[in-house]
Amino acid sequence: MGSCNACCHRLPRTLLRSSPSLFPSSSSSNISIPRRIHFPFCPPKSIRNIYTSGEHFTWDDVVQFAHDDSSDVLRGYFDKVTLCNRNSEKQSEFIPFMIEGQIVGYVHNRFSLNLQRYKDVFMLLEDTSGNSNFGCHVALHPVLSSSEDRTKAVGNVIKCLGENLIPGIRNELYPVTSSFGTPEFFSLERAAAPFFGIKVYGVHMNGYVERDGEKYLWIAKRSKVKSTYPGKLDHLVAGGLPYGISCGENIVKECEEEAGIPRSISSTATAVGAVSYMDIDGYRLKRDVLFCYDLKLPEDFIPTNKDGEVESFKLVPVTHVANIIRNTQLYKENCNLVIIDFLFRHGYIKPEAFGYLKLLKSLRSGDCT
Amino acid sequence: MGSCNACCHRLPRTLLRSSPSLFPSSSSSNISIPRRIHFPFCPPKSIRNIYTSGEHFTWDDVVQFAHDDSSDVLRGYFDKVTLCNRNSEKQSEFIPFMIEGQIVGYVHNRFSLNLQRYKDVFMLLEDTSGNSNFGCHVALHPVLSSSEDRTKAVGNVIKCLGENLIPGIRNELYPVTSSFGTPEFFSLERAAAPFFGIKVYGVHMNGYVERDGEKYLWIAKRSKVKSTYPGKLDHLVAGGLPYGISCGENIVKECEEEAGIPRSISSTATAVGAVSYMDIDGYRLKRDVLFCYDLKLPEDFIPTNKDGEVESFKLVPVTHVANIIRNTQLYKENCNLVIIDFLFRHGYIKPEAFGYLKLLKSLRSGDCT
Repeated sequence: MGSCNACCHRLPRTLLRSSPSLFPSSSSSNISIPRRIHFPFCPPKSIRNIYTSGEHFTWDDVVQFAHDDSSDVLRGYFDKVTLCNRNSEKQSEFIPFMIEGQIVGYVHNRFSLNLQRYKDVFMLLEDTSGNSNFGCHVALHPVLSSSEDRTKAVGNVIKCLGENLIPGIRNELYPVTSSFGTPEFFSLERAAAPFFGIKVYGVHMNGYVERDGEKYLWIAKRSKVKSTYPGKLDHLVAGGLPYGISCGENIVKECEEEAGIPRSISSTATAVGAVSYMDIDGYRLKRDVLFCYDLKLPEDFIPTNKDGEVESFKLVPVTHVANIIRNTQLYKENCNLVIIDFLFRHGYIKPEAFGYLKLLKSLRSGDCT
Repeated sequence: MGSCNACCHRLPRTLLRSSPSLFPSSSSSNISIPRRIHFPFCPPKSIRNIYTSGEHFTWDDVVQFAHDDSSDVLRGYFDKVTLCNRNSEKQSEFIPFMIEGQIVGYVHNRFSLNLQRYKDVFMLLEDTSGNSNFGCHVALHPVLSSSEDRTKAVGNVIKCLGENLIPGIRNELYPVTSSFGTPEFFSLERAAAPFFGIKVYGVHMNGYVERDGEKYLWIAKRSKVKSTYPGKLDHLVAGGLPYGISCGENIVKECEEEAGIPRSISSTATAVGAVSYMDIDGYRLKRDVLFCYDLKLPEDFIPTNKDGEVESFKLVPVTHVANIIRNTQLYKENCNLVIIDFLFRHGYIKPEAFGYLKLLKSLRSGDCT
């Protein structure tokens, strides 16, 4: 904990900016490094790596950005919201996935061709609801009337489609519903969720400490061997919401596994709202809703990771975290939204900043139901 | 302060419910008072008055509802959101009010007939934007090109229309903009704002105290002689955002006037987000955005009203305030939204409650820009 302040020497302003475009160029042409800058922690080449790959950086690299509060007040935040909501103009390429008259997801029109081979599981039906640009929707075969049958049949198709079409199979099931809290129609492999555009729910927790009236956030740095977002910055605790567990129970479970927080402390975590986004990437349509939690931790608490998913933790003043969010892409994308929500609720973003309401609204750009 | 807990004896559950309908009947037919209930504070007749008039009630009446936590978990909150968002199906009766190509408000198609007499100020123009159901929009005469000229000319029309058409003239000006923070096109009398459907912004502050780990909210009871919502419950501090003052400055000003909170304390008020609603009542279209603030007050602070708008204050446990919101209509309508937002952010409403996301979303039912 103490090392945070010790190493946060003040650096000259305007080192780097995150790109305003969705797909930052891999060249370093838009990196402006003013002359006569002293780099106490890493040479310019290393900074380029931070910017372009987002993986190969150290805590020392991170803190360089923590003091840089020179950028347009809200611009860097808007960029991060945009990163989580790519290609919204391509929604029209997706066909509704309907069960029992309700939309539970969306399938890319070209991906749906892969499903048509499995006629005893998937059907392409004429759409009378007006929900589809293609005049049709994807449905399950009516013989699959129970949740168990659907889960098994769809699971078998996903296995047949294989890693080429649906990479990263985790053998972890997510509930398929029309909205949160409604009965599950069936359960779907986590890696397949974006290919079927189902709503996925998660819990994200900002763990913070208050010391002498100033707030500090615990940042996790993901393990370099994690299959997703290796080495990126993350919340102290976060996780998807699998089948059959409530948000509150899940937070307590993840607190124990990811940060070694005992139930006596984690049970005081406070539900504070939700953010949402809709991201299109090829055949993948993510419709994620993240339930946000705050946990005020004792000043002397030190997190310890137990499941090997976190490389290390660091306690950083919230004002510095805000600069890291605005100035870099070092955080796992969706964490940005939850931290921006934290910044709103704790008064770090003020109505006087131009774009306040627009940014606030953008935190629920996805279908937040 | 101490009197709050002293008088909060526990009462039998299920006394009264707020009506789920938009316009509660003035009869007491839907008030169900179970037999064998002891009323330590007031007789049944008084309770009927609370319910039907919303004005003639005392603090003792209020606390009766504070312990009643038996209703459907979120139902009472949804009812209050609905109260602030009436008649949305009648949006189509309104014509856009446009200045310099931007929509700044909406005018009821029949109310617009009153404006047509003032041809040197208002014009009805053909609409090419597709924004209007009537194929036209209301505009200002092009000769009125400056903010000052528009303010004066429209102000004169409002005076001519008189109290019959626009009651409650306050001689208080609100800025007319397309969205928050953009340049003002002109300034409009506050009482006329809903007749022109302009966006109106306000600041609402929840003042709270933390004692032994439990949070308490300060409730204000409005003066019985106030022209609007006399005798209703209110926030500790709230006000419209007039022309030429920032949200933060306005909070400090209102804190001093409404609750005698010195700048040394009020300057620590935290901006925490915003709520919005759209309410249609006859010719009136309210499009209000309320910036929400939290202020943690010292335990021994006692508010004192200085502008005569508040009759008295009371400190009430947040859990009891939640029950008052759910079970009654004693609060000024829009305060309900800001307090429900507080309940979300402070963990009093949890994701496990069915309808959590829907209720959260509903707090910004209006155009929150």
